[in-house]
Amino acid sequence: MARSGESRVPVAVLGATGTVGQRFVRLLQDHPWFHLAVVAASERSAGQRYGDAVDWQQGVPLPESVAEMRIQRCEPMTGIPLALSALDASAAGPIETAFARAGILVVSNARSHRMDRDVPLLVPEVNPGHLRLLEEQEVPDGAGIITNPNCSTIGVAMVLGPLHRAFGVERVHVVTLQALSGAGMPGVPAMAIQDNVLPFIEGEEEKLESEPRKILGRLGRAGGGIEEAELAISAQCTRVPVSDGHMAMVSIQLGERVGVEEVRAVLSDFRGLPQELGLPTAPRRPIHLFDEPTAPQPRLHRDREQGMAVTVGRIRPCPLTDVRMAILSHNTVRGAAGGALLCAELAIAEERIPGITPPVPTDDR
Amino acid sequence: MARSGESRVPVAVLGATGTVGQRFVRLLQDHPWFHLAVVAASERSAGQRYGDAVDWQQGVPLPESVAEMRIQRCEPMTGIPLALSALDASAAGPIETAFARAGILVVSNARSHRMDRDVPLLVPEVNPGHLRLLEEQEVPDGAGIITNPNCSTIGVAMVLGPLHRAFGVERVHVVTLQALSGAGMPGVPAMAIQDNVLPFIEGEEEKLESEPRKILGRLGRAGGGIEEAELAISAQCTRVPVSDGHMAMVSIQLGERVGVEEVRAVLSDFRGLPQELGLPTAPRRPIHLFDEPTAPQPRLHRDREQGMAVTVGRIRPCPLTDVRMAILSHNTVRGAAGGALLCAELAIAEERIPGITPPVPTDDR
Amino acid sequence: MARSGESRVPVAVLGATGTVGQRFVRLLQDHPWFHLAVVAASERSAGQRYGDAVDWQQGVPLPESVAEMRIQRCEPMTGIPLALSALDASAAGPIETAFARAGILVVSNARSHRMDRDVPLLVPEVNPGHLRLLEEQEVPDGAGIITNPNCSTIGVAMVLGPLHRAFGVERVHVVTLQALSGAGMPGVPAMAIQDNVLPFIEGEEEKLESEPRKILGRLGRAGGGIEEAELAISAQCTRVPVSDGHMAMVSIQLGERVGVEEVRAVLSDFRGLPQELGLPTAPRRPIHLFDEPTAPQPRLHRDREQGMAVTVGRIRPCPLTDVRMAILSHNTVRGAAGGALLCAELAIAEERIPGITPPVPTDDR
Amino acid sequence: MARSGESRVPVAVLGATGTVGQRFVRLLQDHPWFHLAVVAASERSAGQRYGDAVDWQQGVPLPESVAEMRIQRCEPMTGIPLALSALDASAAGPIETAFARAGILVVSNARSHRMDRDVPLLVPEVNPGHLRLLEEQEVPDGAGIITNPNCSTIGVAMVLGPLHRAFGVERVHVVTLQALSGAGMPGVPAMAIQDNVLPFIEGEEEKLESEPRKILGRLGRAGGGIEEAELAISAQCTRVPVSDGHMAMVSIQLGERVGVEEVRAVLSDFRGLPQELGLPTAPRRPIHLFDEPTAPQPRLHRDREQGMAVTVGRIRPCPLTDVRMAILSHNTVRGAAGGALLCAELAIAEERIPGITPPVPTDDR
Repeated sequence: MARSGESRVPVAVLGATGTVGQRFVRLLQDHPWFHLAVVAASERSAGQRYGDAVDWQQGVPLPESVAEMRIQRCEPMTGIPLALSALDASAAGPIETAFARAGILVVSNARSHRMDRDVPLLVPEVNPGHLRLLEEQEVPDGAGIITNPNCSTIGVAMVLGPLHRAFGVERVHVVTLQALSGAGMPGVPAMAIQDNVLPFIEGEEEKLESEPRKILGRLGRAGGGIEEAELAISAQCTRVPVSDGHMAMVSIQLGERVGVEEVRAVLSDFRGLPQELGLPTAPRRPIHLFDEPTAPQPRLHRDREQGMAVTVGRIRPCPLTDVRMAILSHNTVRGAAGGALLCAELAIAEERIPGITPPVPTDDR
Repeated sequence: MARSGESRVPVAVLGATGTVGQRFVRLLQDHPWFHLAVVAASERSAGQRYGDAVDWQQGVPLPESVAEMRIQRCEPMTGIPLALSALDASAAGPIETAFARAGILVVSNARSHRMDRDVPLLVPEVNPGHLRLLEEQEVPDGAGIITNPNCSTIGVAMVLGPLHRAFGVERVHVVTLQALSGAGMPGVPAMAIQDNVLPFIEGEEEKLESEPRKILGRLGRAGGGIEEAELAISAQCTRVPVSDGHMAMVSIQLGERVGVEEVRAVLSDFRGLPQELGLPTAPRRPIHLFDEPTAPQPRLHRDREQGMAVTVGRIRPCPLTDVRMAILSHNTVRGAAGGALLCAELAIAEERIPGITPPVPTDDR
Repeated sequence: MARSGESRVPVAVLGATGTVGQRFVRLLQDHPWFHLAVVAASERSAGQRYGDAVDWQQGVPLPESVAEMRIQRCEPMTGIPLALSALDASAAGPIETAFARAGILVVSNARSHRMDRDVPLLVPEVNPGHLRLLEEQEVPDGAGIITNPNCSTIGVAMVLGPLHRAFGVERVHVVTLQALSGAGMPGVPAMAIQDNVLPFIEGEEEKLESEPRKILGRLGRAGGGIEEAELAISAQCTRVPVSDGHMAMVSIQLGERVGVEEVRAVLSDFRGLPQELGLPTAPRRPIHLFDEPTAPQPRLHRDREQGMAVTVGRIRPCPLTDVRMAILSHNTVRGAAGGALLCAELAIAEERIPGITPPVPTDDR
Repeated sequence: MARSGESRVPVAVLGATGTVGQRFVRLLQDHPWFHLAVVAASERSAGQRYGDAVDWQQGVPLPESVAEMRIQRCEPMTGIPLALSALDASAAGPIETAFARAGILVVSNARSHRMDRDVPLLVPEVNPGHLRLLEEQEVPDGAGIITNPNCSTIGVAMVLGPLHRAFGVERVHVVTLQALSGAGMPGVPAMAIQDNVLPFIEGEEEKLESEPRKILGRLGRAGGGIEEAELAISAQCTRVPVSDGHMAMVSIQLGERVGVEEVRAVLSDFRGLPQELGLPTAPRRPIHLFDEPTAPQPRLHRDREQGMAVTVGRIRPCPLTDVRMAILSHNTVRGAAGGALLCAELAIAEERIPGITPPVPTDDR
């Protein structure tokens, strides 16, 4: 990659020891555009070796070079144009604001700023144009906050996006079966979920009922923020004993009476800007469709395209709406760290940071 | 019990070695009205000791007296007025017909006869009057076929019953999270469900979309069968790694605009004929409500009232319909063997078998 | 029970909100000798309604009368001759000592005092005579501390007890597969054990290697404590995704060369003092043997005799020692609350509290 | 690779639709030396498209080119010098013999021929010299049968190998916690293992007690087969609810009294012939050691080096022998398909098939 000379963009990961932070660290290994320059975490961990502070739960080894890094405080640092935030919502808000004001572009996985009027809530395939909201933030040029939706929202929004553009989406019933990793660590006690499912996830239904309205909304005139889409969503969120992979059973009422085959065609043909630009973390196809009724399944399909593809099956008519289907997405990859990383790549490709230009897209991925 | 003198009614269990058959055997231990007189199963097992033929998977020991019983063929036997059928749908149809024609009252858990015009599909608390359909069957007096709904239907029907009577039910969205025992043995391979959920259960959605319409229907004039209720249901059925207990996340549109509190009151106050009659297997309250949002949960609540109570929680408004909630029922007890046993008790209490009268209800259960 | 007049012995449960504390509460419902008079817990919970402070995880409802009880501080109270302690080891030591000095008989599930020279480490079937150690404690008459072994020790000790008496036990290799409830709440994070087993449980192997030596030891002359048995144990403790029920795979070298049939006979015939006395919580047979090689299994067999029986299977020769077998015990019943309750019953039956006499044993349990 | 010109060796997979067969198919994708030329399976599947006949359970998509292949009968075919057998033991024996007699080199995962006097039971790192046994088989030049040990044996043998060479191994106690995939499909019913562990796996303990003796044995004079090592093993095999990854808790008595550090050094330094030769499927290090007591764990560590590395932790003294440890290996990769593939690579590298020469080892893997 030919950034300013030979080097990759130095990146800070905030909240680097948690579940999503670990994913960021893992995804930044061998990233063609970025290199992990700073691991930052809470006061408690600051100053420790990363390898000592983290309870590494990824299925691949922690690279020795990362293990040796010293954890920094979550305070703006110089020489770092880009920060990926995996901070808890309890801490994220003011920290991310401070970073943005200090001139850093922050891509956040926390909910703190998602519904802020001037902050894009981004699914790069669905609403890349919302990046323009950055211009409304009162921060130095090239800085600002971009947010990634909730892990339960992303798979649903990826499907609603193209359907909304093609037919309009009016009403959505969704029941989720969400994986354990969505709760972070320590998260759900094993005794609470052993031989069990839980009918409730605190705060989750609200996010899933509101975030897609913003994602599918329209960028108004300058300063006007996003005009939310007029669709109504009923979300019921459950927790199931699965490590990774959120499943959503949805029933969708469209603006037009169309058949299942037209729905299938729209989803199958869908490609977004990340695919056009060939962004490094973009899946070749954002949505993979299955014909067999037994798919998708978390264990078998969550890792499609390194966890960045959303998989969809059981597309069929609904007695009460137009169409039903099952949607699966990897909650800590596409639904968190991978999704946020893709947002960062899009921002670079769109030259949102002055002086940092995207490398020539590689064709032979 | 003081039936005709001192003895309890001799009962045959058909399909006695399977998951539901084992539950029948277990529930008939110490039953005050019935005693297990015959265990019958497929050709393959006939003639064997029950204890040798069965792979006993209940959490309590198999009684030695039952282990010693010889398995009979599934052919009508004399001296047995009542049969409880746990046969597979592949075999149940003609066998149950033969038993009924031979003068035996059959309560079946199979789907074979559920939608027959002259066969009651019974949830004793909800539609006890449908028992009258027995009179339309062309069988000897006191004989006939009664069916028990599908295990995924029962919890939902128990809730829809009183709501339909009070307000009318127009539309129901339901997504189920169903337990492994619903698939019998060997059922789902462990490797298929390990760290996984399955988005499809063959044939299940059709049952859940059609059976409640019959259960909530009205008995027409003689010979006219059941006039189905006019409600529309969308069912999406998933399998989860839980041993027992089907969860259903439902969203219900009622015929009247009523508040959540009125819905709650109707469910909380609901009692049926089995409760009035004090039937031995009837729960004191058919529906248990929870206020805390974390309930119901399969592992904690499936065994309420020995698995015969349906538990309901998260009653709250829905952005798209009138009310949403989570419904849990024990699929092999209330949803299968226990439910069928309660049907049999109701038939006896209603004196559907000439010469067999119900004992005086005991008050001090 | 007709203790001093009409009433049952009032009992305090210390640490009443945790996993084992909840079991104590559950087991004391309808106990014929004891009634739950006080629930005590940490400073943080003191003063709250029990129903508000507890995250009740038992499969049966919390009785309303208990939910209404106010939680007290863990300080000695008057009018309570007996306390059952489910306190964490971090707190148990000084609190239990304070209770004993205040004149209360404490039966503890914590490890704090287990290896104290003058404290009995009791498995009532195996070493009831160790109760005499109470006389060496410097506390008021009728008071003192009795301890219950670690949950992984009890099943193994129950088997080693009769074998040691019959043949001597010299060496034991044991590998455990331990249930989640053994870690209490929140205990193990679900993400740590999902699709996984853990090869290590902190502090567990040390207990399992040392406690049986004391339990099988001999009461020396007054003041001399217990002379530990000379057996060597190698314990390797693993955690598995099972809710309740610790399995131990053991290989035992005996003091005599005896055949598998003699081992089986000793275990099958074993009865202890609790069985002779007909204590309320005692199982009829402390050890249940299985012939089929697929038993015991946690889900199917942990609840034998309300969780108080130890189940044993796969008794067979070992190429390296004399005999191998699989041992299963319910870790929160026999291995914790039930075991401690049985210790308390034994103490009452042995008239260790002056003025409190055991009721006449009932024959028709 | 420069085989005979430009092409890779055409390989047949026998039993290609089962769990291990699927792994073979997956591992042969992009293999530098071999290409999948034939998928063969039972009579029942023969003639079908592979994509139609298989219930593909791998976490990566089935390549379209393989899905289109027609399944052949398990009969020797021309033009195929090498067959990888994932056949059931019930069928493997005579089929593999027929293939060998027809001039094909068969590497088998079945137990049928493992203990045959003239058949190598191969762990390429441990006993590569046993390949010479091929010369004793009465088959055409370049043909014969090589077997791979049982999935529970391989991890243990990989550790015992270097220890036996360094110090001698005299006695081994091993208790395994084995994954579900070891039972194939459908394998263990989900209801049998849900919230449960099983204390018995049919036939498994016999294999684990006998196979290491042959693997660690010495090749005698020509025609004399293997002189088994004189070590005694006690194996107790359990099944746990884990998808992949067999754990073994072992206690080892060595021929010399050495400390834990010497054991650790021998294991850490261990490299075998596959590492020297740089075989494509060989892990860089056959054994990975962990210092932290919580490792290894199946979910976190089974995929080390694409599942070909054995991971070892908790090396510590044992009160009864010299050393204890926990050993983990991926049962369907290193313990089955991957292990067999490595055997095939070794055979090619050793020029066991006339006219087929190994490519020059690549240095930059």
